[in-house]
Amino acid sequence: MRFILLTLSLVIVPFVHSQTDSAIIRTIYNEALSNGKAYEDLRSLCKDVGARLTGSAEAEMAVHWGKLKMESYGFDKVYLQEIQVPHWERGTKEAGWVKSKSGTLQKVHLLALGGSIGTNGVLTGELVLFNNLDELKAAKKKDVAGKIVFVNQKMDEQQINTFRAYGGCYAIRGFGAVEASKLGAKAVLIRSLGLPVDEHPHTGSMHYVDSVSKIPAAAISTQDAEWIEELLKKETAEFVLEMDCRDYPDVTSYNVIGEMTGTDHPERIITFGGHLDSWDTGEGAHDDGAGIVHCLEALRILKTINYQPKNTLRLVFFMNEENGNMGGKSYADWAKEQSHEKHIAALESDRGGFAPRGFHCDGSDEQVAFLSSLAPLFKEYDLHVFEKGYGGVDIGPLKKTVPGIPLYGFVPDSQRYFDFHHAPSDVFENVNKRELELGCAAIGSLLYLLDKSL
Amino acid sequence: MRFILLTLSLVIVPFVHSQTDSAIIRTIYNEALSNGKAYEDLRSLCKDVGARLTGSAEAEMAVHWGKLKMESYGFDKVYLQEIQVPHWERGTKEAGWVKSKSGTLQKVHLLALGGSIGTNGVLTGELVLFNNLDELKAAKKKDVAGKIVFVNQKMDEQQINTFRAYGGCYAIRGFGAVEASKLGAKAVLIRSLGLPVDEHPHTGSMHYVDSVSKIPAAAISTQDAEWIEELLKKETAEFVLEMDCRDYPDVTSYNVIGEMTGTDHPERIITFGGHLDSWDTGEGAHDDGAGIVHCLEALRILKTINYQPKNTLRLVFFMNEENGNMGGKSYADWAKEQSHEKHIAALESDRGGFAPRGFHCDGSDEQVAFLSSLAPLFKEYDLHVFEKGYGGVDIGPLKKTVPGIPLYGFVPDSQRYFDFHHAPSDVFENVNKRELELGCAAIGSLLYLLDKSL
Repeated sequence: MRFILLTLSLVIVPFVHSQTDSAIIRTIYNEALSNGKAYEDLRSLCKDVGARLTGSAEAEMAVHWGKLKMESYGFDKVYLQEIQVPHWERGTKEAGWVKSKSGTLQKVHLLALGGSIGTNGVLTGELVLFNNLDELKAAKKKDVAGKIVFVNQKMDEQQINTFRAYGGCYAIRGFGAVEASKLGAKAVLIRSLGLPVDEHPHTGSMHYVDSVSKIPAAAISTQDAEWIEELLKKETAEFVLEMDCRDYPDVTSYNVIGEMTGTDHPERIITFGGHLDSWDTGEGAHDDGAGIVHCLEALRILKTINYQPKNTLRLVFFMNEENGNMGGKSYADWAKEQSHEKHIAALESDRGGFAPRGFHCDGSDEQVAFLSSLAPLFKEYDLHVFEKGYGGVDIGPLKKTVPGIPLYGFVPDSQRYFDFHHAPSDVFENVNKRELELGCAAIGSLLYLLDKSL
Repeated sequence: MRFILLTLSLVIVPFVHSQTDSAIIRTIYNEALSNGKAYEDLRSLCKDVGARLTGSAEAEMAVHWGKLKMESYGFDKVYLQEIQVPHWERGTKEAGWVKSKSGTLQKVHLLALGGSIGTNGVLTGELVLFNNLDELKAAKKKDVAGKIVFVNQKMDEQQINTFRAYGGCYAIRGFGAVEASKLGAKAVLIRSLGLPVDEHPHTGSMHYVDSVSKIPAAAISTQDAEWIEELLKKETAEFVLEMDCRDYPDVTSYNVIGEMTGTDHPERIITFGGHLDSWDTGEGAHDDGAGIVHCLEALRILKTINYQPKNTLRLVFFMNEENGNMGGKSYADWAKEQSHEKHIAALESDRGGFAPRGFHCDGSDEQVAFLSSLAPLFKEYDLHVFEKGYGGVDIGPLKKTVPGIPLYGFVPDSQRYFDFHHAPSDVFENVNKRELELGCAAIGSLLYLLDKSL
């Protein structure tokens, strides 16, 4: 397969690297590393705005922040795209305790899953443990009804790419409540989808279906999961849960958009961005503050070095990736409606602010081959992943509304991402300045090469 | 050049990857990631022993710690190699202040450079700034005599490989005191060799020469360097320095050695290790606690999976890399004297506990080509650097005493290394568990391939 791709890259897409390309990429990196604004912009987004769940005052402030930032960098156009978004709030009460049969009492570190209903007061039930969703599905109603289900699936630490380990566990968070409720459970707890064993619970989206009663759902820290597992080997225990999270009516929010207009083909659009919303814990630093400033900085750098794009470079700060993706869906629908526009590529950064490894392409073999042909230009910058893969959640809907569009995903090192993902530890202090800046430069360089080549 | 190497790798060293190789490497990675001891071993070295400068009680305890660890893992032989090492101590007084002409007074974050003499009481002198060592060398005696020289050279943040940026600044630390003293300076201060602008001073070795008077030398934090630079643009200032660091007579210490004896060729030795000593600030977590546990864990894993090496795998915890390299030099001399031994390769890890990128080979074109031919086996583990480069300080002297030996250097990502190098921030908490474990697995896998192939 790889051999075929390499052959294609030589035969079908003979991208010729010129000395100019190397020089421009070097200039982009130098600007990012010596005069970079990304780190300070991320500090501002994390500290001046903070966690910014869709529908919150902070999300509204993030929209304002994004528009001001884009205006301050003097892009050709800055505007908002109005969208309707869900509005869920954690509320103020959120706590859980384990009461063992032998009389111990211990509080756990817990976060309601996004979208969960509350407990409507204090909810108590016997804990019943399952190791994964299949075990839960196979259980008998009599063993689950009236109890609180605890799904203790560990992320597979043997996966080198941590996103694969995450994918392997996602179902317990997404569908645990539905499966537990089918068997009459009162609530569901999941082991947090995080790799380290520590005290931080990791929240994230979950789903209900109309045909099954809604039950509360929460994630407990991996550390708590470990001792509860040991406890339940020895004795039974009850769980006491209180949460007053709830849904509110949809509200109006915005994607924030900034553009450098194409000199030759203003109607040809290269969309790139990250998501402006975050979960309501931590500061959304890696997820996806990093992606926001990666892309903001990439455009700032191209403007600063006086690069004149042939095509229109459109930077989008998408709203609501975390719990609905209304920003991405609305943008893709809107893109289809703009009959004068031709969308030629999209790129997303939503895997954290770590040292760059390369880019994925969700596209045709030829499109992937084109990406692979760029690899030599990035060798001296330590990028080595230029292959078929995933683009991103926000740009994903473009695949349907703009058939044939290649979607590019920025690929940083994945090792530390699930230390912080959706957890209180996803704060500015856990982002490294140089790693962040190298991501901005890599993305700026790819945008240059896409604009030049497409 | 690359093409030639690739050709060589196919023609001269036809390393054939078997499914067994892939399976054994997978087993090594699984053990490191699922049952790894490296992170706990590093915690213990950092917290139970601590910073361990050659000659200190902590260095002696580190030797004891290393021997106990190797014995606890049941290696075939564990023994000490006695060596003579220097003994320098920081002492208890170490402080510096800037007194500006207009009357401000500010304390700076400062560390004496390793090997510096003390100030013998309080030393005061007018500050004179140079931007690099060449500027200082070109200065006139009248502009420097009786003053305190401040060399404010920044590490070049545009270098992608941070070790290159370090190399570009090394001279101000190594030779600043000699050059300043030649012109009659009272003392020398250098801007710390660290990339971030923060409050941590970075120490490290410096040199005197017999023909030039010794003067005290210290590193100030990059943050302090920045404001002092600004201050000196506006007005003159004095620096007040007190340090009571000094040399003591040489003492006896040890390299700690553990072996798995080769089944077919016990006399053929593959040496691998890191250095057990560290600077006396922080905890020597990345430098070089990580290298110590990388190599310890690599051998533990090979033993745990019941790998029987053909050749003898010799793990060495070298003493005194930081200020004399007596461990590395003594080991190389000793290796030469053991006429029954044949040293076939050496490997070192001394670039921190970050996500692996690959390996360097300091060797012949054929030896480099052999290393390059291993790359496909490591692709799924995200390693991509298999090229000519540097081995390491500890194994370096083997090049002279064992002509023709290939030296391999483990190459982790370099971006965060100079945040912590020789600074109070080089502590266990700044090492990531997975990144560390992946390094252990990469080194264990290369040892397996070297043992099998050489």
